[in-house]
Amino acid sequence: MLHGGDLSVACERYGGTPELWLDLSTGINPHGFTEHQPVPQSAWTSLPAHSDLDRLIGAARTAYQIPNHIGVAAAPGTQALISMLPRLLPDGEVAIAVPTYTSHQSAWERSGRTPVEVSSVYALPASARIVVIVNPNNPDGRLVDVKSLLEIARTLGKRGGFLVLDEAFAEVMPGASILPHLTDEPVLVLRSFGKFFGLAGLRLGFLAGPQDIIRQAALHLDSWAVSGPALHIGTAALSNKDWQEKMMRQLSDEMADLTLALSVAGLGVFGGTPLYALAAARNAKGLHEALARHRIWTRVFDYAPTWIRIGLPGSQANLDRLSAALAEAMKEL
Amino acid sequence: MLHGGDLSVACERYGGTPELWLDLSTGINPHGFTEHQPVPQSAWTSLPAHSDLDRLIGAARTAYQIPNHIGVAAAPGTQALISMLPRLLPDGEVAIAVPTYTSHQSAWERSGRTPVEVSSVYALPASARIVVIVNPNNPDGRLVDVKSLLEIARTLGKRGGFLVLDEAFAEVMPGASILPHLTDEPVLVLRSFGKFFGLAGLRLGFLAGPQDIIRQAALHLDSWAVSGPALHIGTAALSNKDWQEKMMRQLSDEMADLTLALSVAGLGVFGGTPLYALAAARNAKGLHEALARHRIWTRVFDYAPTWIRIGLPGSQANLDRLSAALAEAMKEL
Repeated sequence: MLHGGDLSVACERYGGTPELWLDLSTGINPHGFTEHQPVPQSAWTSLPAHSDLDRLIGAARTAYQIPNHIGVAAAPGTQALISMLPRLLPDGEVAIAVPTYTSHQSAWERSGRTPVEVSSVYALPASARIVVIVNPNNPDGRLVDVKSLLEIARTLGKRGGFLVLDEAFAEVMPGASILPHLTDEPVLVLRSFGKFFGLAGLRLGFLAGPQDIIRQAALHLDSWAVSGPALHIGTAALSNKDWQEKMMRQLSDEMADLTLALSVAGLGVFGGTPLYALAAARNAKGLHEALARHRIWTRVFDYAPTWIRIGLPGSQANLDRLSAALAEAMKEL
Repeated sequence: MLHGGDLSVACERYGGTPELWLDLSTGINPHGFTEHQPVPQSAWTSLPAHSDLDRLIGAARTAYQIPNHIGVAAAPGTQALISMLPRLLPDGEVAIAVPTYTSHQSAWERSGRTPVEVSSVYALPASARIVVIVNPNNPDGRLVDVKSLLEIARTLGKRGGFLVLDEAFAEVMPGASILPHLTDEPVLVLRSFGKFFGLAGLRLGFLAGPQDIIRQAALHLDSWAVSGPALHIGTAALSNKDWQEKMMRQLSDEMADLTLALSVAGLGVFGGTPLYALAAARNAKGLHEALARHRIWTRVFDYAPTWIRIGLPGSQANLDRLSAALAEAMKEL
């Protein structure tokens, strides 16, 4: 499985060392959260304490507005949780709203199950027991409203099923999250820490849902799943409401600038979130390769030859570099 | 499951904040590895790169003397790997050499299997297909020689079975590891990074064994299981042979001092490794509680009322503090 964000692949194919590249292949906030106290020595040297994990989960509960009756588990990244879902959920047909982040499909296939692909969440097969929706969706930003999601969940509940919602990018789409609205619907929600807080290397993610399933997840995750530094920085970041609000506005502004720059270069943005733009190009793969020759790494998709996904450049200098490279690349095509 | 090393439990029961406590409840090296370049910003902000994971695994291969034909996977701590073993290994009876680290038992039980407990690895049941041995053992330091281990593995192999070796403390017992001697025996070896390198909060561990099983393990672990800081620090530490050799001698010296101090206090050390001493006390639980009132946290065992495990204090001042508290505690009993 090839994801964005691995510059070692880019360096291997096109040369150069990572620091020479501008990596726009992910949807990770380029402005990593740094407003925390220095990581204390004990966070590195000692086993993570239960009480620190409880504090982290409390901070996540507040930041994500998770009602008290919903369980929350913390993991070293949502990828580990996606892998675990097939073991937590009942047998039966799995439907995934596509196109989307491919790890969901792979995780179910690894456990010997073949998900059905559905292109509209408003016409789900009556046979589906488990439905996976990434909301807002990656890469196109498609958003399903909370009321519809709750209805889907209730329908699945009547079949003994579950709705899995991957809210990896929900922070940057205010009002998108189902979490504040959950009562007793059979919904499992994945929240990624590293994307919005710009700390993907830290490895931290959350799973929220019915208490009995979350208890199972916590057993599978076992002791000390989350590192000491992740407990320290995660708690500080999730508790810092001011930073979160300021960052949300800043990312929206930067996405407006990026959208304009892409449009000037002749690329029409037709989807995305404030963390990534999905643009249309006649020959997206060719454009991706041309930009790579300028040491700019973007993301293209096998299933959609006209789509190119471009993350936030993070500074005016980087945006100018992208604009210049785009102008050159468009000529080369 | 209650492990050592969680001072939040100690603080809850006996008061005080963690920094007031001397934590001797684990077998973690009190001298954490610090001789690495500062963790680069990109290790926090970017998704961990495949090439960095390859480098880490290469460093582990060299440090642990793992032959090239043996596979190696890296995880955020061996606990995650212990949890995963039941899914990687075939059905059949599981035997665990006891008493030992209880997580092995729990992991198999969680997957619906009831391990048989065996007290001698030289009299394993003929029905056992999978045998789990912690070597050197925790808490008593019992060591099974490599030749016997290879024989056990070959016997299990004839039944389609596997030997699982948890070498969490093998660094401090030169010659203990089976890894340099492996040819094609069905052996899976767990190596903990955090204990010897004194960085338990970093969360890093390895699984070595037959290539096909390690490939399965890597699939289950999925992308980005190991954090950026763990890749950076782990590679540096595993590559630093000088530090490892110096530390091995230092820990042995410190264990000699601790053994002497315990003996002066009337406690006989009858087992352990250079990272923890296992001592006998008529009323180990009472002694544990008396030391806790002095804010010194040790480890006792439900199954052995006369055993108390004591980790290295890490400095002369801490050793003196332990000696003084022990003298008081022995009077209180």
